[in-house]
Parts: sequence; C-alpha cells; structure tokens
Amino acid sequence: MLLEMGQKAKRAARILARLSTAQKNAVLHLMADALLADQSAILTANALDVEAGKANGLSASLIDRLLLNESRLAGIADGLRQVATLPDPVGERFDESTQPNGLKIRKQRVPLGVLGVIYEARPNVTVDVAGLALKSGNAVILRGGSETLHSNRALVRSLQRALTQGGISNNVIQFIDSPDRSQVLELLQLKDYVDMIIPRGGAGLHEFCRENSRIPVITGGIGICHLFVDETADLSAALEIIHNAKTQRPSVCNALDTVLVHRAVAADFLPRVVEHLAPAGVTFRAEPVAAGLLNHAAVFPAGEKDFDTEWLSLVLGLKVVDGLDEAMEHIAAHSTAHSDGILTRSDEHAQRFVAEVDSAAVYVNASTRFTDGSELGLGAEVAISTQRLHARGPMALRELTTYKWVIIGENHVRK
Amino acid sequence: MLLEMGQKAKRAARILARLSTAQKNAVLHLMADALLADQSAILTANALDVEAGKANGLSASLIDRLLLNESRLAGIADGLRQVATLPDPVGERFDESTQPNGLKIRKQRVPLGVLGVIYEARPNVTVDVAGLALKSGNAVILRGGSETLHSNRALVRSLQRALTQGGISNNVIQFIDSPDRSQVLELLQLKDYVDMIIPRGGAGLHEFCRENSRIPVITGGIGICHLFVDETADLSAALEIIHNAKTQRPSVCNALDTVLVHRAVAADFLPRVVEHLAPAGVTFRAEPVAAGLLNHAAVFPAGEKDFDTEWLSLVLGLKVVDGLDEAMEHIAAHSTAHSDGILTRSDEHAQRFVAEVDSAAVYVNASTRFTDGSELGLGAEVAISTQRLHARGPMALRELTTYKWVIIGENHVRK
Repeated sequence: MLLEMGQKAKRAARILARLSTAQKNAVLHLMADALLADQSAILTANALDVEAGKANGLSASLIDRLLLNESRLAGIADGLRQVATLPDPVGERFDESTQPNGLKIRKQRVPLGVLGVIYEARPNVTVDVAGLALKSGNAVILRGGSETLHSNRALVRSLQRALTQGGISNNVIQFIDSPDRSQVLELLQLKDYVDMIIPRGGAGLHEFCRENSRIPVITGGIGICHLFVDETADLSAALEIIHNAKTQRPSVCNALDTVLVHRAVAADFLPRVVEHLAPAGVTFRAEPVAAGLLNHAAVFPAGEKDFDTEWLSLVLGLKVVDGLDEAMEHIAAHSTAHSDGILTRSDEHAQRFVAEVDSAAVYVNASTRFTDGSELGLGAEVAISTQRLHARGPMALRELTTYKWVIIGENHVRK
Repeated sequence: MLLEMGQKAKRAARILARLSTAQKNAVLHLMADALLADQSAILTANALDVEAGKANGLSASLIDRLLLNESRLAGIADGLRQVATLPDPVGERFDESTQPNGLKIRKQRVPLGVLGVIYEARPNVTVDVAGLALKSGNAVILRGGSETLHSNRALVRSLQRALTQGGISNNVIQFIDSPDRSQVLELLQLKDYVDMIIPRGGAGLHEFCRENSRIPVITGGIGICHLFVDETADLSAALEIIHNAKTQRPSVCNALDTVLVHRAVAADFLPRVVEHLAPAGVTFRAEPVAAGLLNHAAVFPAGEKDFDTEWLSLVLGLKVVDGLDEAMEHIAAHSTAHSDGILTRSDEHAQRFVAEVDSAAVYVNASTRFTDGSELGLGAEVAISTQRLHARGPMALRELTTYKWVIIGENHVRK
C-alpha cells in the first residue's frame, strides 16, 4: 500500500511541478476555505482525539498541543493564505553565465519531488506542511502521530477536497491513515518514490529515521544552545537576553540550555542571573566553580550529563570559563550545532566567535530564540536542520527545492 | 583504526576551516612541488601496480587508466596549481538582510567538514580530490582501488609531506592503506566524524555505498543520456552533435546513449545517423519502427533492457517517437536524470523541454558532453550528482561547503 502511495505521489509531483504560481496560490486559498467550511467535522474529530488522549492519561500540555478550536483552526487556515503570499521559489534562475565558447548556462529551481513527513502530536503540522509542500511544488506523504489520527484524517479529507476542487490530483497530499509503526518503516524504504524525509518530533524520532531510512533525512530540531557572556559584555543587556532565551518559550529547540561566563565577570554576573531568572521558575545546574559563586535554593550541582542535555524546560546550565577559547571549546564539545551566541562589546571577540563556532545559527548580542523561519525572514518554516548537507538552520520554501542546470547552445559540440 | 582516522580528521578539519585562502593556496603549490620531487618514488610504486595488474589479467584500458608517467604526473601536479587559482568559497557571504527589528542576518559558507571518498582505478583521483578538499577547507579520508594501492600510498606520502612542510596537520589528507573491503564498510559507519561520502566509480560502488552508509552519500556518475531530434531540428547540425555526444569519449557518464527522433524526420534522418556514426565504430540498437527504416550491418534490434542501459561504449539506441510528448515520456521513464537534450529550432518546444524534463543538466542544441565541472565554468569537478539533495550535476568547490547563519543583534530579544 505504501508502494502504491509512493507511485501515485511521484506521478502527481510531475504535474504539480509544472503548475504556475497563480494556480498553486488559488489552491492554497481553496484549502483554507475548505478547512473553515469543514470546521464542525474537524472539531468533532479532534474531540475524539482529545477524549482518547485524556483516557490514555496524556499530560495536560500534550492535550493542549493536540487540541483544536475555532480560533486555532482559523489560525491554521490563515497560515495557508500567508503561504500564498510568499514568493514561489520554483523557476527562479541563478548563477547565469555565458561561457567563452558561447554556451549559455543557468541554474533553475525545481521542486524536490515527493516529501515524506513524519511528525508527532500537533495537528497543525498536517496543514502547515501540506501548504508549504504545495507552494514549493512537492507532493507529500504525511504520517502524523496516533494521538491525532482522527483530527489528521478530517484535516486531510478537507484539504484533498480542495485539491480536487482546484483541479489538482489529490495524490498531491496523501496521508498514512494508520497508527501502525511498520508503515513508517515502509515509508522510509521508498527510495525510488520519496526524495526527502522530514521528521518533526523528539530525538527518538530523528534517530529512528536516520537509522532506518534509505532516503535522505533532514536531521534537526535538537538544540543544546549556548550563550557565552564575555568579559566585555553589557551585563544588564546580557541578563535580559538570557532571560528571554531561557524563559520566553522553554519547550522549544532554540531555547537556551547553557550560559558560559567569563571568569572576570562571573562573581558579579552569576548571582544576578540566578536572582533574575529564579523568580520565573528557572532552576540551575552549575559546575563547581560557578556553584562556588552561588548560594541559592534554585542552584544545584551539575551532573555528568547535564551539559549534554537539551532541557526543553526551565533548567539552565551555568559554567565559568577562562575566556573565549575555553567557551568555544565547550561549545564544540557539547553543542548540537543548532544556535550558539556570544554577548560581547569586543568586535574582535565577536568576529572570532562568528568565524570559529560552527553552528547552524551563530549569534552576536541576541537571544537564540530567533532561530526560526519567520523571525529570519523566510516567512515560514518546515524544519530546522542541524545537519550539514542541503540546508542548514531554518528551512522553508526554497529549501524544499533543488535545481537543474539549463544549457543552451547553438549546435555546440565539445572539442 | 577507522574510528581513530575519523577522530583525527575531525580535529584537523576544525583547524583547516580557519586557514586563509593564501595559506591553502601555498600548501597546494607545496603539494604540487612534492609530487614532482617524489616523481621517481611515485613512478616506481606505480610500476608495481601496473605489473600486478598485468599479472592479474586487467584489460589494456584498465592498465592505461592506472598508468602514471612523467607527463601524467606533471599534469596531476599542474591540476593542484589550477585549484590554487580558483576562488575560495569559504567565507562567502550571501542572502544578507536586515530585518524590520534591526537584526542583521547573513549566510556564510563554511566547509562541510570531513569527506570520505571511495574510488576505483585512477590514481589521479587521489590527488585531484585531496586538492579540492584542501581548497574547500575539508579534511578527507581516501579509499582508492586495490589495483592502485602502491601508487596511492606513494602519492599520499608525498602530499602529507607537503602538508607538514606547510605547517598543516597531515591528518587533513588520510588514506585507508588496505585493500580490505571491510574497511569501506567501517568508513560508511563513521557518522559522527565523516560528513559526506563521495563514491567515484561504477553503479555497483554507488549502490554499495547507498545501501550501507549511515552518512549522506552523493549519488551520481551514472548517465543514460538522451537527445531528442525534433521535427524542426537543423538535421546537419544534429548529426554533428550526435556524433560528438556519442563518439568523442564514449566511456564517460555524459556520453550519449539514446537518440529519439521525431516521426516526421525519421525516414530522412535515421539513415544519415547510421552512415555518419558507423564508420566511427558505432553500432546501433533500434526499436522496431526505427529498425524498419534502416538497413545496415551495424544496426541491431533493441533488446528489452537496451533503453535502460548506460552503454559507456560505442553503442547507440535509436527510437522513433510521435513528438515532444512521447520523447519526454521516454526520458522520464528511462533517463537517469543526468544529461538530456533537445535539438530543435522551435523556441516553444525548447522551452517546454527545459521546463518539463527534470534532469541534472537539460540541453538545447548542444552535445551532452558538456556536463562537466570545467566545461560549465566550475574550474574543476569532484563528482557529478544525479541525486536531488544538496547539489545536482557537476560539483566542485562550492558544493563541498555548507553555510551557517550569522545573526548580529543589538541586544535583541524575541517578543
């Protein structure tokens, strides 16, 4: 069955690749309209998932993640209309040149083809990903979490109706309508039909996909993020940046995990960090030197694995370092190469940090929370890559394309 | 042992990534100098490989591929000096913007890290790849064919001496000095230390790497290439282009495999193709309609798999099609998405072909033989990718890099 889905997706993708931007945008609006028209069916289906989730003892925060209501659904539909306003990368020409022999050469963006997206609790991902795939000319095979099966089924039915209405094959958006995990394994084997696998979820899901996929996997979304407070940092500003990076939304991958503080300012600065963040509910894991400078109920000694832990919660690691070099060594050893920054007033230190720290996003004097497609000007986001090939950091429409070389001759032959 | 090589390479890569262009260029010249200085040791080692190859019954053409002599070695050394003249992609800034909130954003090219390159008979690959890796700031672990073990050992010894002389860790260029295939398997598992695997060789090697690698593999180098002769084609020019694409170097991946001819011109054109190419030693595999138009000793009926075969020799498939649509259908079904072209005087047909044929290189009125890094202006080539992610078509220095986002704030926090 998965094989058949793959074949259908591949065929649909060939046609989708040729649609104009206007045709794709029209369908995005039809999709938004359909979600609103089907609101009652979608919310009814979602209620089944919420009920089952409660019966299965899901945490309140997980229940909240899978919950849809009128305003959330309206927001999701609006997201599709936003995608319609974004520039279409397909057909973009770049690297144009004329060779000395007169051969005209350019590159031209084309869709990747078929995306396989495997995700967890949030039903909005179903719609967000479908919209971005459509706009970038890619067919998609979706596999959501079993906790949102009813919601996803209703959402996809609605989206597919819009595709048909727009005169597009509904094989452009397909959905693995089964909680059976073996289906994921099958999807990961479809190398002749699926061009890219995008896992969205925890470290376990990413690892499972990497281990089992015969298709290229976009690894990402795991961030052990650092800020280094240099001796020249504006310490008041640094406090606010650390507060923002840690507490503004602690459950996400670009939230701060570890603060490294220059020895020269540690005795002054570290107690201020604790005083400023503890009232927000933050607890601290301090290595011995840092711990020696602190005396607060929220401060605990750092365990062996603490600096290799993505907290995703109100926990913050604290460490004193001798300077820039030790900070960068710590980052090289413990970062997941997601988002790491320096807080400094030294241009020289900022430049060295930017040159030598090799993370997807490297910051100077800003919160790590900006590693996000919308914040960085992409208008959307399908994933945050922490791998090195193809795309790094936030990925949106352009990152869902590849290119072809177009070579125009006047009966050129090679000498 | 492989694990240790990976760890050393990773450490060396971090330092290499920070070298200036001038430093890297100086080392490239030292490498070229070293090869010339070590000429006698290298040619002596190569003679052992040639001798063993003859004793093992290697074909004359394989022996020729592995043979080094003074002038070939000088050419290889000169290649390193050429690489020194190419622009350095590392540090290139692109996609610069300032967000409405004042955040300054850019992307900046950085090396991929560590490359694993697995290749077959040609010893020049050892040097070519080492040079391109160095210039792009990547460490490399090389694994050449067992037929060239002595040659490669001597070449790498020479290159490593140059690295030391240039003050660079010789872990930047490492060599798996063993014919044992299990070492290749081990290399393919080093996901924490190696960032990209580049196989260079036949379809079997590519398949082996894809099947067994836990590291992203650049698939490519397999070309079933097509030219479609439209009814409006300049037939005399088409004859020369087909002759060039088939015979100029038949053993390579961008050589022509199949000619598709529009029905309206087939009766006139196909016999001319056969007359023009048969004297060059070309034999033909014609599907029934094409065969019916031909009467020549060099023409054979096409077998079932012939249109799915990369000939790599003086064999050419011939097929009559009803027009552009059937030609594109045939290409979609049989091409390896390497290099495919149209010969036409119709702008409309050229545009449709370029828009709808989704190969790494799409041609209008030119020989497929131009799919090559040097011919397309890259100045070099490390591989020709026929996969869709990361890079497509000829890959050179820039394609051996990735990027990081650099985000410069003035104490920005996320709202």
